[in-house]
Order: sequence, then structure tokens, then C-alpha cells
Amino acid sequence: MAATAENRLRGIFTPNIVPLTSDAEINEPELRRYVDWLIDHGVHGLYPNGSTGEFTRFTVEERRRIIEIMADQTRGRVPILAGAAEANARETIKACEYYHTLGCRAVAIVSPFYYKLSPAGVYAYFKEIADNSPIDITLYNIPMFASPIDVPTVQRLAEECPRVIAIKDSSGDLPHMMRMIAAVRKLRPDFGFMTGWDAALMPMLLIGCDGGTNATSGVAPEITKKLYELTMAGKIDEARDLQYRLLPLFDTMLYSAEFPDGFRAALKLRGIEPGPSRQPKSAVQVDQLRQLSDQLQCLLAAEGFTKEPAAGCKVPPTVDADHVARIVQNVVGELRKRGIA
Amino acid sequence: MAATAENRLRGIFTPNIVPLTSDAEINEPELRRYVDWLIDHGVHGLYPNGSTGEFTRFTVEERRRIIEIMADQTRGRVPILAGAAEANARETIKACEYYHTLGCRAVAIVSPFYYKLSPAGVYAYFKEIADNSPIDITLYNIPMFASPIDVPTVQRLAEECPRVIAIKDSSGDLPHMMRMIAAVRKLRPDFGFMTGWDAALMPMLLIGCDGGTNATSGVAPEITKKLYELTMAGKIDEARDLQYRLLPLFDTMLYSAEFPDGFRAALKLRGIEPGPSRQPKSAVQVDQLRQLSDQLQCLLAAEGFTKEPAAGCKVPPTVDADHVARIVQNVVGELRKRGIA
Amino acid sequence: MAATAENRLRGIFTPNIVPLTSDAEINEPELRRYVDWLIDHGVHGLYPNGSTGEFTRFTVEERRRIIEIMADQTRGRVPILAGAAEANARETIKACEYYHTLGCRAVAIVSPFYYKLSPAGVYAYFKEIADNSPIDITLYNIPMFASPIDVPTVQRLAEECPRVIAIKDSSGDLPHMMRMIAAVRKLRPDFGFMTGWDAALMPMLLIGCDGGTNATSGVAPEITKKLYELTMAGKIDEARDLQYRLLPLFDTMLYSAEFPDGFRAALKLRGIEPGPSRQPKSAVQVDQLRQLSDQLQCLLAAEGFTKEPAAGCKVPPTVDADHVARIVQNVVGELRKRGIA
Amino acid sequence: MAATAENRLRGIFTPNIVPLTSDAEINEPELRRYVDWLIDHGVHGLYPNGSTGEFTRFTVEERRRIIEIMADQTRGRVPILAGAAEANARETIKACEYYHTLGCRAVAIVSPFYYKLSPAGVYAYFKEIADNSPIDITLYNIPMFASPIDVPTVQRLAEECPRVIAIKDSSGDLPHMMRMIAAVRKLRPDFGFMTGWDAALMPMLLIGCDGGTNATSGVAPEITKKLYELTMAGKIDEARDLQYRLLPLFDTMLYSAEFPDGFRAALKLRGIEPGPSRQPKSAVQVDQLRQLSDQLQCLLAAEGFTKEPAAGCKVPPTVDADHVARIVQNVVGELRKRGIA
Repeated sequence: MAATAENRLRGIFTPNIVPLTSDAEINEPELRRYVDWLIDHGVHGLYPNGSTGEFTRFTVEERRRIIEIMADQTRGRVPILAGAAEANARETIKACEYYHTLGCRAVAIVSPFYYKLSPAGVYAYFKEIADNSPIDITLYNIPMFASPIDVPTVQRLAEECPRVIAIKDSSGDLPHMMRMIAAVRKLRPDFGFMTGWDAALMPMLLIGCDGGTNATSGVAPEITKKLYELTMAGKIDEARDLQYRLLPLFDTMLYSAEFPDGFRAALKLRGIEPGPSRQPKSAVQVDQLRQLSDQLQCLLAAEGFTKEPAAGCKVPPTVDADHVARIVQNVVGELRKRGIA
Repeated sequence: MAATAENRLRGIFTPNIVPLTSDAEINEPELRRYVDWLIDHGVHGLYPNGSTGEFTRFTVEERRRIIEIMADQTRGRVPILAGAAEANARETIKACEYYHTLGCRAVAIVSPFYYKLSPAGVYAYFKEIADNSPIDITLYNIPMFASPIDVPTVQRLAEECPRVIAIKDSSGDLPHMMRMIAAVRKLRPDFGFMTGWDAALMPMLLIGCDGGTNATSGVAPEITKKLYELTMAGKIDEARDLQYRLLPLFDTMLYSAEFPDGFRAALKLRGIEPGPSRQPKSAVQVDQLRQLSDQLQCLLAAEGFTKEPAAGCKVPPTVDADHVARIVQNVVGELRKRGIA
Repeated sequence: MAATAENRLRGIFTPNIVPLTSDAEINEPELRRYVDWLIDHGVHGLYPNGSTGEFTRFTVEERRRIIEIMADQTRGRVPILAGAAEANARETIKACEYYHTLGCRAVAIVSPFYYKLSPAGVYAYFKEIADNSPIDITLYNIPMFASPIDVPTVQRLAEECPRVIAIKDSSGDLPHMMRMIAAVRKLRPDFGFMTGWDAALMPMLLIGCDGGTNATSGVAPEITKKLYELTMAGKIDEARDLQYRLLPLFDTMLYSAEFPDGFRAALKLRGIEPGPSRQPKSAVQVDQLRQLSDQLQCLLAAEGFTKEPAAGCKVPPTVDADHVARIVQNVVGELRKRGIA
Repeated sequence: MAATAENRLRGIFTPNIVPLTSDAEINEPELRRYVDWLIDHGVHGLYPNGSTGEFTRFTVEERRRIIEIMADQTRGRVPILAGAAEANARETIKACEYYHTLGCRAVAIVSPFYYKLSPAGVYAYFKEIADNSPIDITLYNIPMFASPIDVPTVQRLAEECPRVIAIKDSSGDLPHMMRMIAAVRKLRPDFGFMTGWDAALMPMLLIGCDGGTNATSGVAPEITKKLYELTMAGKIDEARDLQYRLLPLFDTMLYSAEFPDGFRAALKLRGIEPGPSRQPKSAVQVDQLRQLSDQLQCLLAAEGFTKEPAAGCKVPPTVDADHVARIVQNVVGELRKRGIA
């Protein structure tokens, strides 16, 4: 395939949640139903074993099983970008080989995590994998969780490794994305830039990104996909309105619970049963998720995706700013003592 | 004046450098010449005593003198947004009163710095000033240098303080800007949002900002202003191209020297003499600034603003990535030991 | 004076609060009374215009006035380490000259703040001042507020500048202190190392520090001084006990309010009237300070420094961990949305 | 076993490296030889599958194999603290069960990583495991790599979970350790506090720690163990000298290469063959490790552990501070552009 701009990874790829049974095993029928639901709602691709898919909480065998099920269910209707990071380069290469046999379009490999590596170490890791992988590779930069991939490293990997065909960047840093595009696009017109930061999808597309791997598209694919389409069509005013509507949904799912529990709660409201999380919850967290679910139901009801919760969605009484400030102030001190803030 | 969208602060306000004489005093004639040069180049307003203007390195009397000179020279041709932060709320209010008598359009007040205040403290500080100022106030959020101003604090100040009419945000965080706009615009259509992060000017304008207080406009007003105009006119492709041209200029001025020495060096190349910095320089730094000046001259020459340096601006030989990586790798260790990285 | 270990700055220097009148002016009689109280309680030196003394919230003239009053009141009974940082190197040198005429033992100069300088910039700043100061200089490293001073910079300044005779380090980083001592002590046996982190005073002294500039000594000089003496006398078990008693007092004063309001509240309980803060307070913060005062009164009563508050100091009912967790959990989300945590 | 102070985990536990063959498989004979070498050198316990042991770079089966080999080789001569963190709570509990059958003294479980959890999430995770583990558990706090464990969480787990018997803290934050000891010791006299920060071992012991899990003890057990013994015997001056000698060794191994490659390089110099790392290296990094090895050889030779390298260990010519500053300055800009610093 000639390395031209036409071949770029593009559009909205959904980093999907994996539905679990009540005893926290992979719920294969529900996963298959979810795959169909996503494709029916028009997402351009699927991205299993990403951060939203909690890849670190599954075993090696389970990660493979997830891709098997999804590849089988998708049957080529949309491309699959398979998260392939394993314990080390050798194990990751084995995963690349396997996902290649399953017909995935490419793999996505998160930068090394736990240890924070220098740029030289990040480069060496991806180079080793790219030199030995039979399948195209998307770099995955998510500096809040893993070693950052800097601009010269992206540029060097793009120059030296034809197998590296794209980067997914979840930093949300717009000038950083521009710097990467400026450094790579002229050398590799076929290299794709995908943003993982839903809150900035429209501006990211406007400065040159090709698409997104956005967790909101797993819950409200109608919005994320339309935002992509409006922006690419140059309908700036409509796109802006939609980006402003997506923002509180994204913020609420992301910041009101441990990631990705907010997205799991919203998915349930869309009629896909995510099942229990594999991360144990304290009583406090269970309570909090219950409240969050009502909040999310109101947000989703406002978009027409579901009906309002039993208690309704009255506009909340004007918040007493002083009261909120009081709580926050009290807790800032608490957090400082705990060494968190 | 009715509080409508028409009254919003908008356009490009230049955070200007203060030219100094060889013995580091305010160079009044050159400052006057610079004011004229900026106005002649079409900037929409002036913003003295900002971070680019090194307000912390001047005395109280000098800060006032700077505004006096500039107000006198401007004679109302463009509005002045006067940086007014002093040692405490009372001193800051005195500065507000004085700048009001000089006919400034508004003041800009940076969030408290040195001590990192909680949101309640930031609120109380601005509330005290806003309740006692005879002149409109722009909040100035620059979290890399000063206590961050969070979204609820901006919202509350916008609700309670008619004197607070805008925020300048230099965080460069696009979703943060959207959250502020979403929280404030419906309550205060007259409230302006200005970005201080030149690297994201176009996308910031596209999601609803009214303008920018951009250091690049002090050096290359032609570009910054045109970028504003093209974006506001919806000429997205041309604007994007210009934003990509502005980026390396901004990055080079910002990251290659102590801030704002890169901007000072570039200004000199435009024919305005900034004079010596008030921050002492080591021999190393002097060398480095010399090299930087050549780099900047090439960037400015490419835009037609100056001629090339004597040694020319040949395209540099392809960089040996391994060589650069080696240097960086060696120094990462050094920095770690120094406790910097 | 020969540069020997005997000359080192040593002991406990109190970074004193400046009592204010009800209209927030310097309360000279109370400041004089406080100076006497501190000296009577045995502190080894005074350190006005430090962070605890809120130097940034006073005008140039006030900062000078504070030193004048204190030098006059002290009349040589203990050495004065005068905070001398002003807007730039030239203004700082003028302050050095003036404090020299007042008979201060040395000045303390905080690393440049607001702008974050590189090591080369920090070096150049202190070098310029040291080459022009008639009075000995203590470097002041407080990385949470100002540009960090790294080990090679301390070493270089110690080598090149005889005027630089000590460092006050408020980072609380014990290995960092050891690295500085290892780098400098052999070259400059007369160079003193003072810790500003009360929570680690005993261990800091045990690895070679000469003393501390500790805010707790302004409120409970009996404890801080005794902790110094016990540790220097090798009475490790007694010192450890005292360090454990000092810790909750320090933590409560430091983390339960904007710095240094907790210290101000405690000082009032010791019978010195600090007056109002110059930093405006919201209603929330006023409430919070009232509660904090009762907490502090209990801690101080337990040490015999004051009587219990009217409501008593009953041991609080066992905290419901779940309840606390609930509050914290709710607010972590709130803070994340505000962009704080 | 009664829960008394006598039962506390104490002494120096070595977080051991796993020697690999030339094709990066576990080198069983060399691992057995290393176990014997460590026990012969007097370490009080072994801590396999820690961060130094690169647990994340082995497969599930390999992690188990490592413990099997070591338990078999140790045959009860010293206690084993087995790193047991797996993909999720259920898998971790299975590992606990298995390591219990192997006769390990306890397991160590790192706080959840990749995702950053709130205190409530960290609590829930450890509670779930502690309620289901047949073997004692040591919490492992390493905030630079994993979700931080705060003081109230440690306290709550200590109160509610008899299986949780200790914490290993690698934060190096001395007051944080004191706060934990103050919160827990009175409730659970049998609860042990181990520091993982070699640079502060002596002061950590002096404020109440029971021992350390120190990577230096895998390379220079003579020093780390003696430092423990001297400190516990109250020989402060001798201990301090040794702590100062340990510091540059620790710093050089830790900061001059990707962790834990500096420790691997030093181990080779002690005659244990670590084999290749599982993390690929760029040419730059290979070079750098060669230089580092010479540096380490000089440090180890100075302690009498090895002979000097062929090129000798002349005292380096006095460093030209300006030259170093120049390099650092140039690279700080480079790093800023790369988004690292």
C-alpha cells in the first residue's frame, strides 16, 4: 500500500469497555451485542484493550480473548485497533503477531508505564517492537499514566519505522499535537494523528488531527461521530455547539469517579450492561456511583438517549457559592495533610 | 454602558516589553517609539506591566511611570489594559485608582503569587479589589507563575462583581477555557475571554475567545493580528497555516532562554532597542542569547521582517538523532541529580 | 574573621510574624514586645522579612521599617538575619547596604520568584548580589514558592563568593540537604546549613545541619529550642519524643489555613496580638480560622502554654473513617473539576 | 502469634534483581548463587518481585517461578517478603495463596498503578485482598510509580485488617513516615515500618522505622547492613559517616540510568551476572551504561569491593562549572521544547 495521506487512520475509533458477568468474567454475549451497537451507531473503528477497556486489569489470556471475540463479531465491518501492550517487548511482539492473524487493522501500544522512562528508553522500546511486528503500530501517548512520548521521539520513529503509522495522543495538549504534526507530516503523509482527549476534539481536528479514539463515543457515539463530521465539513458553529454539549458529559464521566467507572455507569444507562468493575469499591464509592448515575441520566436524557430518573432533573437550586467554597476549603486542608494536594 | 456582548474586550492586546537604557533605566524615548510602532502595526490594545513586561522587576514608582508614558504617548488611539498588581490588595487598589485617572480602559490583576492560595483566598483577594476599584478589572490567570483561578471562582466573581469584565488566561488549557466560557457567558454577555497562549490562538478563538494578550504581537504584530483576523473571518485553512508559522517563532522565543529574554532578543531584531535585562546573566546565558539571536533572525527573515544573519540561514544538515539523544540522555541524568527533572 | 566552623550561623532563628494594628499598619509596640518575648524565650536569632513574615505583602519602605524597629529593639542581644529580597538585584543590593548599616548579622535572599529561572539564572542573580554586598548573605531555597537552588549552584556560589556564608533550605528534602553538605562543607567549613522544615528538624540536625529557621519557634520557642538542644546533646530518645510532639502542631498551623495564618492564630493564643492579615479573607476562611484557633488552643494547652478553650478539648469521638472518606471522595471529584488536584 | 512489637518485620530486606541468561530468561543457577551471596553477606530478609526486581517485566508464571526458586534456595535461612501484585485483586489473592504455600513470611503488594486511584479506591483494593489472604501483607507505597497510600488509609487498614502487618514506604518523605508511625503505632504495636529510600535510611531509623527494603543492599549489603546496625546501636557519628558514603553510590545507581539498570551494572561488578535487561536499549543508552560502569567501579573500589577500572580512578580535574552550566543550560531549553522539564 503506497504511503499516502489516503491511507491514514482516520475517524472515530471507540475505546470500548468490556462488559463483565456478575462474577466479573468477560460477558461474551454482551460484548458481542455492544460491538454491534457501536457499529450500528456508526463509529469508524473499534479500539479494544485501551485504558477505557481497563487492559491492565485483565490477564494475558483474557486480553487475547477480548480481541478474538471482537474480531469475530466485527467480521471486517470496521477496522480494529487492538491494544497490544504486554509485560515486555517480547511479549508485546507475540501479541502483535497474534492480533495480525486475527485480521486487526493495527495495534496500539502504550508507552512503557510504572517505570518512567527517558526519551531514549521510550524510543528503544518502540523501535524493538516496530522492527519485529508483522502488523502496523499506533503509538499511544498518555502522559498522565505512562512515560511521555516526546516530539523528537515520534519524529524519529516515524522516520525509521514504516510499521509505525500513527499516534494516539491523550495529553489534550493542543500545541504539542501541532508540534508533532509539524515534525512528521511532511516526512510521512500517511502517518495519522488521533486525539484521545474528547474535550478538545473539534479544535484538535481543526489543527490537523485525523480523528479520535474517544471514550465518549462508547457511550454517546451519536454525538462524538457527529462532532467529527460537522468539524470535518467545516460547519464550525454547529460543531462548536456540539463540542460544548459534549464537554459536561465528558467531564462528569471522567472526573466524578475513578476512571473509567463514570463511563461504565453511563453505558448501563444506554442499555448495555457493563457488569461489576474489577476494581473493588468501598461503601463510599458505591454511594457515589449511585448519585453519579442519576446525574448522568439527566445529561443523557437531555440528549434524548434515555428518560429522566424517577426523581426528575429539576434545575438544581442556585448553588450557594459560599457553601461550596466552605466544603472545598475544609477539604483542601484535609487533602494537604494527607499529602494529596 | 449596557453590559452587552458589544462591549467586550476583544482583539489583540500587546503585553509590551519595556525598553531600558544601557544602565537599565526606563528608556522613555524608545518606549514611546515602540508604542507608536505597535499602534502603527495595528494591534488593538496595549498591555503594559504584564509578565512579558517584567512588572515584578520594576519598583512601584517605575510601574506607574511606565503607564504614564504609555498613556501619554497613546493618546487614546488604542485602549490600555494596565497591569496593576502590587504588594497587597490596598496597594493594588491605589494603583487602580491612579490608572483610572490616566484614562486606561481597564486594569489586569494577576492572581496572588509567591504564596499559593486556595480558591477561597483567590476569591477574597479579587473581591476586595473589585469592590473598591473605580476602573474595570481583568483577572489574570497564569498558573505556571501564580495561584490558579478556578472555574467556580471566575463564575462567582463574574456574578458578584460588575467591575470584573474579563479574564486573561495563560494556561493554554483549551477545555479549561471552554469551561469558563460555559459558566460565565450566559450570565455576563459582556464578559471577555482573552488567551495568553499564542500557540493556541486560533483554536482558542474558534471555541469562543474574544482575543488574546499575546507576547508574539509585540515582536511580530503582523502575524498575530492577521491570525486573529483570518480566524474571526472564518478563513480556517489560511488561519491554520499562519498558526503553524507562528508556533516555532513562539516556541523559540519562549523556550530557548529565560522568559522573556527570547522576546527581547527578537524585538531588537525588529529595530526596537530593548536594552539590557534587569535579571543578571551568567557568561553561559550571554553566549546562548547570541546563538538564539541568530536563530530568531532566520525565523524573522523567513517572514520578511529582517534580513538573514551574516552567516546565512542554510537549512541545517539533517540532525543526527542519535547525537541529540545522547546529549539529552546525558543531561537528563545530570538534571535528575540536580533535582530539576 | 577566619573562615572556620566556629563562625557558622547556628541555632534556632525565628522567622517572625509582623504584628499589625487593626487598620493593618505595622504595630510597632507589639512588634517590640514580640522581639523581647522571643529573646526572653531563648531563640538564638531573629529572621524578619521571611516567608512567615509575609515580606511580599509589605512595601519597600515597610520592609525597611520592620528591620529598623527590630534592630533597635534587639540591641545586639541576638543576631538578626534580615530578609532582603527586593524587585531586582540592584534594589536588593541597596537593601543589603542598608541592613548592614543597621548592624544585622547577615541577610537572607530568597531565590528569584514569579519567573522560574534555570540554574544559570539563579547563579547569576546571587553572584551579582554577592559581588556587591557589604554584608554576609544566606541563600534561601524554598522550591514550593521560588526557583529552586540546586546543589551545583550552591557549591559554585560557596566557592566563588566569600560573602555567601549559609543556605536556608525549606524543601524538607533530607538527602538534598546531605548532598549540599557533602558538596560544600570540605571547601567552606564556615558555611552554615539551616533547615526551614520544622517537621524534620531533629533528623536534619543529625545529618549535619547547624540549626533551623523555623516558624514554630515564633509560636512555641520553648519546644523548637529544646528540640535543638536535645538533639545537639545526643539525647536521641528525648529529642525524638519532642519531634513527634512538634509535628502535629506544625502540621496544623501549616496545612489548616493559608500560610501563615495558622501561625498568626497560634501567636495570638500565646498573648502576642498579630492583628488582621493583609490578605483578604472570605467568610468561609474567617469561619475556618475560628475553628482552627480552638484546635490550636487545645494543642498549645496540652503543652501548658495556654488554657483550654471554653468548650474543652475532649478527645474527639472516634472518627467514622467511612464518613471522612465520603467527604474526601466527594471533594476529590470537585477539585478535579476545578483543576486543582 | 501475639501482636507485639517483637513480631515486627525488621532489619534490611533486599529487593533483589533477577539474573537473566543471554536470551533474557531467568538464570536459575545465578539467581540461586545470588540468594546465597546475599544471605552470606548478612541481609535479614529477601524481597523478590519488587520494583528493583522489575516485576512488571515478567509474566505471571515467571513471577511465581522466581519465588519458587528463591524459597527453595533460601530454605528458611531468612524470611522472604514476596512481591505479589497481579492484574487485579482476585489474581493478587491467588498469588498470596501460592506464596503462602511456599512458606514466605509475608507478601508485599504495591498500590494500584497505571490508573491513579483516590484514597477510597486504594483502601478498597487492599481491604479486599487483606480479607481474603492467608498470608501477612505489607503495603507498598511508592508514589513516584503508583497511587499514593495516604496516612488515614494506612491507619484504617491497620485498624481493620490484622493481616496487614507493615508498610514499605519508598517516598523518602520523612515527616510522612512520622505521621504514619504516629497514627498507627499505638493501635498496632506489631505493625512494621520499612523505608525504601536508602538515601535517608539512618534518619528514618532514628525517627522510628524498623528497617529498610533497600536496593543498595543488593549490591553493597556490607554497607547497608552496617548502617542499620550502627544506627540501631546509637552510634550516630559512625552511622552518619556511612550514610554519607552510601549516598553517592545510591545516587549514581539511581539517577545515572533508567532504573534499575544502575543497580544491575553495579551487581555485575560484584561478581553476580545480571545478564541483559528486558527493557530494550538504544545505542546511546548502551554507551552511557558503559561509562556508568566505570564510575560505579571507582565507587565500589573505594569501598574495597572491587579493583579500579583499567583507566584508573584519578580524581577528576576540577570541573569547569561554567562548562557544565553551559551544557545544562542548552539542554534545559531542549527539554522544555520536548515537554519534559
